[in-house]
Amino acid sequence: MLSALDLARRIAAGTLTPAGAIDLCAAAIDAHEAEIGAFAALDLDRAKRLAGGDALASAPLHGLAVGLKDIFETADFPTEFGSVIYTGNRPRSDCVLASLVRRAGGIVLGKTVTTEFASLQPAKTRNPRNPAHTPGGSSSGSAAAIAAGMLPIALGSQTGGSVVRPAAYCGIAGYKPSYKLLPTLGMKGFSWYLDTAGVFAAGVADAAFAAAAITGRDLRVDQGKPASPRIALARTHIWGDASDDMKAAVELAGEKARGAGARVSELVLPPIFEDAFRAHAIIQDYEAYRALGFEFDFHRDKIGPILREQLDQAASISADDYDAARRTTKRARQALAELMADTDALLTPSAPGAAPAGLASTGASIFNRLWTLLGTPCVNVPGLSDKAGLPLGVQIVGRFGRDRVALEAAHFLERALAD
Amino acid sequence: MLSALDLARRIAAGTLTPAGAIDLCAAAIDAHEAEIGAFAALDLDRAKRLAGGDALASAPLHGLAVGLKDIFETADFPTEFGSVIYTGNRPRSDCVLASLVRRAGGIVLGKTVTTEFASLQPAKTRNPRNPAHTPGGSSSGSAAAIAAGMLPIALGSQTGGSVVRPAAYCGIAGYKPSYKLLPTLGMKGFSWYLDTAGVFAAGVADAAFAAAAITGRDLRVDQGKPASPRIALARTHIWGDASDDMKAAVELAGEKARGAGARVSELVLPPIFEDAFRAHAIIQDYEAYRALGFEFDFHRDKIGPILREQLDQAASISADDYDAARRTTKRARQALAELMADTDALLTPSAPGAAPAGLASTGASIFNRLWTLLGTPCVNVPGLSDKAGLPLGVQIVGRFGRDRVALEAAHFLERALAD
Repeated sequence: MLSALDLARRIAAGTLTPAGAIDLCAAAIDAHEAEIGAFAALDLDRAKRLAGGDALASAPLHGLAVGLKDIFETADFPTEFGSVIYTGNRPRSDCVLASLVRRAGGIVLGKTVTTEFASLQPAKTRNPRNPAHTPGGSSSGSAAAIAAGMLPIALGSQTGGSVVRPAAYCGIAGYKPSYKLLPTLGMKGFSWYLDTAGVFAAGVADAAFAAAAITGRDLRVDQGKPASPRIALARTHIWGDASDDMKAAVELAGEKARGAGARVSELVLPPIFEDAFRAHAIIQDYEAYRALGFEFDFHRDKIGPILREQLDQAASISADDYDAARRTTKRARQALAELMADTDALLTPSAPGAAPAGLASTGASIFNRLWTLLGTPCVNVPGLSDKAGLPLGVQIVGRFGRDRVALEAAHFLERALAD
Repeated sequence: MLSALDLARRIAAGTLTPAGAIDLCAAAIDAHEAEIGAFAALDLDRAKRLAGGDALASAPLHGLAVGLKDIFETADFPTEFGSVIYTGNRPRSDCVLASLVRRAGGIVLGKTVTTEFASLQPAKTRNPRNPAHTPGGSSSGSAAAIAAGMLPIALGSQTGGSVVRPAAYCGIAGYKPSYKLLPTLGMKGFSWYLDTAGVFAAGVADAAFAAAAITGRDLRVDQGKPASPRIALARTHIWGDASDDMKAAVELAGEKARGAGARVSELVLPPIFEDAFRAHAIIQDYEAYRALGFEFDFHRDKIGPILREQLDQAASISADDYDAARRTTKRARQALAELMADTDALLTPSAPGAAPAGLASTGASIFNRLWTLLGTPCVNVPGLSDKAGLPLGVQIVGRFGRDRVALEAAHFLERALAD
């Protein structure tokens, strides 16, 4: 994989040129893209041309290639949202995140494959760890491109589990920030209360570095040894749905963290969080039926069966049910803030297990949707594997707005797992 | 003016056909549009064709013409955001609100003029009450089209004061709902923390009827006599910036409300609200510099001088300043919820006075931006005038999420003013 921090350091030191960094991506794309299918659009010539300029030579991402999930609108690339309804669509402008990447010196190398409208309807991308398995979704291409070493930085989005889950399945770092930390204007929406943009990179410190550069915020965790965090192992009410390997991975992560100096406790979540877990689907589907109103009403026959059935059923969700789900969410957010008053991060599975075999499903978001709903920062920490050698991701969940602390805890755990 | 409720009742009773309702709009457009300039795009043929169908004959807005501010993306009309950068822009799909209007039976008759990207940079529209005066902004065309009787319903948006102020200047009802009650996906954004879609109509009950139909929520206030509200007159710290006529209008509104049976008290807002007032510009401008990043970086010369200077200055706002403004906002929201525990609505000016003369400015949003920041429902109540006969709007501000109560209080006041 290409570490964004490593590339940035080499570019800053003059031992690698921006064009040389693009060449590293090009070589990996040449070797892997035909099999993996991570890109919906790609423009290496444009990237090399931009890498040759020096307008932003002092910017933090100077020369670094970035992939944008193909739900982010871009003026220089087609933007098709993973849907045949939008074949050849070319927006007039860039989404806000594309502007922020550019202002930070980053170079958008291509658009990465998204499932249809970032839904559960799978796309073509394969998992670089084992191409017979799904890379997860909906940010399938962003995760796979990082895992295959084709990009140092990729952006995606999470409405259920679309950042943390594919990162886990592909064995990379995935960071879903606090709700709205990364602007979503110019991104095709699915659920405005849940849609959250996120970052993929080789390691946690790389993802934090990219997020810091894009937001101009103090999020980096590579500039010193991470502090020992106060971690609470949260099995949640769906612990029984985790595979034995995943359960063992989470327990092992807790032991490794304790061994490295973390304070590790256990947290049993009260019943309000089961209510909130159920509230997620109500809010998501109520909004999706509206967010995709144009497509559902005028191009129903061009929507895939999984998404079409989801929207069919969503039509009957009432405003009262939606409002009740929103109120439940508010209560759960308050409850979590109180529960985590003396805790830096929760430790919990990133997914039920390793990436499922086949491409017919992108896997389940059951270990992600509660945290998306609550708006907390979540980080997939890579480093563990199952018996077949497929990655098993464990998840660090921080407090809302405390993204720096969550990233540092995740980096701490990542280092502990590597020891 | 065309009352949406009156048209809907006549259509339901069979005394007016949907095509006949469109004809009423067409006649007013024929008489006034050349002078007023409320429309950025208009398609009467399409509207008549849709009015002739009966697919949605039982939908609440069946046959009613709706204008959409030209920052809302539409597949059947150009969408130019009030900017020459987007001349001829034709989105591939409809924004969510356009879908909701259509599902409710409404017929989009045209796109209404917006100031440049819904900023303070004025557009061509004139005030139907006196064409030598501004209609206010940024939803200039939506307010003017209602006031000139060219539409029964129009949608706009408010980031500072762009719904309540033009409604006040044009002497119509303007309803800015609680933040996010109306979805903004597919709307060109200026500030994602503040942008709020809103409704214009002849009277408060018409606006509530339209909002109820679009959202499928219990927001109508026309089905019974409004309850007597508990109102608090809130002069706010900028009371001195209101004209003498406006001060007298607000005092008179309080007296009329009391006379009609309302409990009217006074509320002095504590200093946190002055901090919040100042926080508005920080949040708005920090986000606008990013929301318009593509346009500012690539088409700077095509941005008007008022907006360009605003963005130039916004570039230096730090993330720390922004975060501090967000924290101030959170505290002010909590403070307002406590202050209004026994109050249904605040009564305060909708604008410093009547519409200023000339088209060089759309007026000041100083009496609106605090409430936009706090996310509360706000309603301009028409009915009063200054000595020159120009409308003076007074504003009802409700509690977050209690839109029905705010609309009912506004309707109560509207009736009291008419007595």
